Amino acid sequence: MNSFENFINDYELTMIDSRIKDAMVYALDGGKRFRPSLIFSIMDGFGAKREVAYHSALALEMIHTYSLIHDDLPCMDDDDYRRGKLSVHKAFEENTAVLAGDGLLTEAFGVVAKDEGISFEKRIKIIKYLSSLAGVGGMIHGQLLDLQSENSTHVTDEMLEEIDDYKTGCLFRCSLLIPMVLVEDEEHEEFYNMVGTKIGRIFQIQDDLFDVIKTQEETGKPSNSDSKNAKATALSINSVDEIRKKLNKEFDEIYNLLVDRNFNTEYLRNIIKKIEKR
Amino acid sequence: MNSFENFINDYELTMIDSRIKDAMVYALDGGKRFRPSLIFSIMDGFGAKREVAYHSALALEMIHTYSLIHDDLPCMDDDDYRRGKLSVHKAFEENTAVLAGDGLLTEAFGVVAKDEGISFEKRIKIIKYLSSLAGVGGMIHGQLLDLQSENSTHVTDEMLEEIDDYKTGCLFRCSLLIPMVLVEDEEHEEFYNMVGTKIGRIFQIQDDLFDVIKTQEETGKPSNSDSKNAKATALSINSVDEIRKKLNKEFDEIYNLLVDRNFNTEYLRNIIKKIEKR
Repeated sequence: MNSFENFINDYELTMIDSRIKDAMVYALDGGKRFRPSLIFSIMDGFGAKREVAYHSALALEMIHTYSLIHDDLPCMDDDDYRRGKLSVHKAFEENTAVLAGDGLLTEAFGVVAKDEGISFEKRIKIIKYLSSLAGVGGMIHGQLLDLQSENSTHVTDEMLEEIDDYKTGCLFRCSLLIPMVLVEDEEHEEFYNMVGTKIGRIFQIQDDLFDVIKTQEETGKPSNSDSKNAKATALSINSVDEIRKKLNKEFDEIYNLLVDRNFNTEYLRNIIKKIEKR
Repeated sequence: MNSFENFINDYELTMIDSRIKDAMVYALDGGKRFRPSLIFSIMDGFGAKREVAYHSALALEMIHTYSLIHDDLPCMDDDDYRRGKLSVHKAFEENTAVLAGDGLLTEAFGVVAKDEGISFEKRIKIIKYLSSLAGVGGMIHGQLLDLQSENSTHVTDEMLEEIDDYKTGCLFRCSLLIPMVLVEDEEHEEFYNMVGTKIGRIFQIQDDLFDVIKTQEETGKPSNSDSKNAKATALSINSVDEIRKKLNKEFDEIYNLLVDRNFNTEYLRNIIKKIEKR
C-alpha cells in the first residue's frame, strides 16, 4: 500500500495551502485504508493494475474520512478522538472541521472527474455510485437512522441491520462496485452488492463490539461511546458471546460466497481475513 | 422559471423520504435562483434550450444551498434566519442541518452524473468545474478567508476582493462556465471567468451593504449580522456613499464587457439589471 500512500501524498500537494487543507491532510492521515484495500483486491483478482483504481480509491477514502469528521462533531456523536489522535474539531476548530469535511467531499468528486486514465463513461458510472451510496439514499441515511436510534426502547435485529446496511454497508458496496466498473464485470453487480453488504454488517458489528471490549489505545477512539450516546447497537440486544457467534456465522457465509467466481477471489479473501483479525 | 421550479420539485420526489430530505427540500425552497438564471441567460443568448441545463442548474443551486446551511451553523456565522424563514438548524436540529448540507452537496454531483441529455465528456467537464470552484481551492477557501477576517484590524480593498472572489465569485463563474460547456463556446473561458468574478464582487458588495441598510423583512436574513461577527466587509473601509459609487462603476464595467460578443448578451444583461435592482 506504500505506493497508494505516495499517491495520496502527491495529490495533497496539488491542493491550495490553507488551514482547511491542513485539517483535511490531518484527517486523511492514519486511516487503515480498508475500503481502498477492498478495491485493490478485486483489481488483483482480475489481474488488473491497481494504479488504475488509485483516483477512485482516494475519492472513496476522502468520502469515508469526511463522514468521520462530521460524525465526530459536537452536534453529532461528539467524539474527541479518532484514528488514535484528537478528532478534527478538537485538533483544529469546529468550523474548520465542518469545512474540511465539506472540502474532502467536494474534492472526492473532482478526483474521479480528473482521472484521465479511464474513460469519461467509467468516471460517470463511478461518480453515480459514489453519490448514490454516500448520499441521502445511502450512507447519510444511515447516519440519520443511527442518530434516531439514540434512546430507542425497542431495538430489533432488523433495525440494526438497516442501520448497518446504510451507515456502513453502502461505502463497502462502493468499494466493490468501483473496481467492478473498472474491470468491466458489471453483470455481477448483485454479487458485489451482496458481499459489500455482508462486509458492512460484519464491520459494524465488530465496531459495536470493540466499543465495549477494547481499550481506546487499541481502537484509536474512546471506548463506550455508543452507550454514552445511548445508541442502538448489536450490544443492545445481544450478549458478547452471541455477537461472537453471529460474527463467525457471517464470516462463514461470506467465504462461501467467494467460491466458484469468475475471478481469483484469494486477494479479496485475504482482506476479509484481515478484517476478521482486527 | 416555473418550468425549472417544476423540475426541482420532480427531482425532489425521487429522493428517499426522511427528515434529512425534508430539511433539504425546506432549504432549497424560496431561493431567488440567481445562479440558475445566469446559466439560462447564456443558453438563451446562444438560442439553446434551457432544459439542457436543468440538471446542472439544479446541481449548482444545491451546492449554493448547502453552503448557506453550513454557513448559518452555530460554529460558523450562527444566523437564525435565511430566505425569510428560520435557518435549517433552527427549523430542524443542528445535526440534521449538517447532514442536509452534506446530502445536497453529495446529491449535486449525482444530478449532473445522471444527466442523460448530455455527453459523458460534458458531464465530466461540469463536475470538474463544480468540484474545483466549490471546493477548497474555491468557495470553501472563501469561507475560510471570511471566517479568518473576523476581528481583522487592518482590512484592505485587496483583502475584500480576495474574499469576495472566492466566497461568492467562484459559484458565479460556475454559472457561466456550465452553459459555456453546454453550448461549446470554450474558447471564451476567460470572458466567462471575468464576468462571473465581476458579478460575484457586485453581489457580495451589495450583500455587505444590504446587511446594514436593509431590514430583515427585505433581505430575509438578520440585519447587522456582519458587524455582530466583526466581519471584514466593504463597510469596514468605505462609507455607504463610496460603496454606491463603487457599485455604479462595477456595473458600468460589466455592461461594457458584454458589448460585441459572439452571442446575444441581452438575456445576460437583463439578469445583471435584476441584480442591479435587488
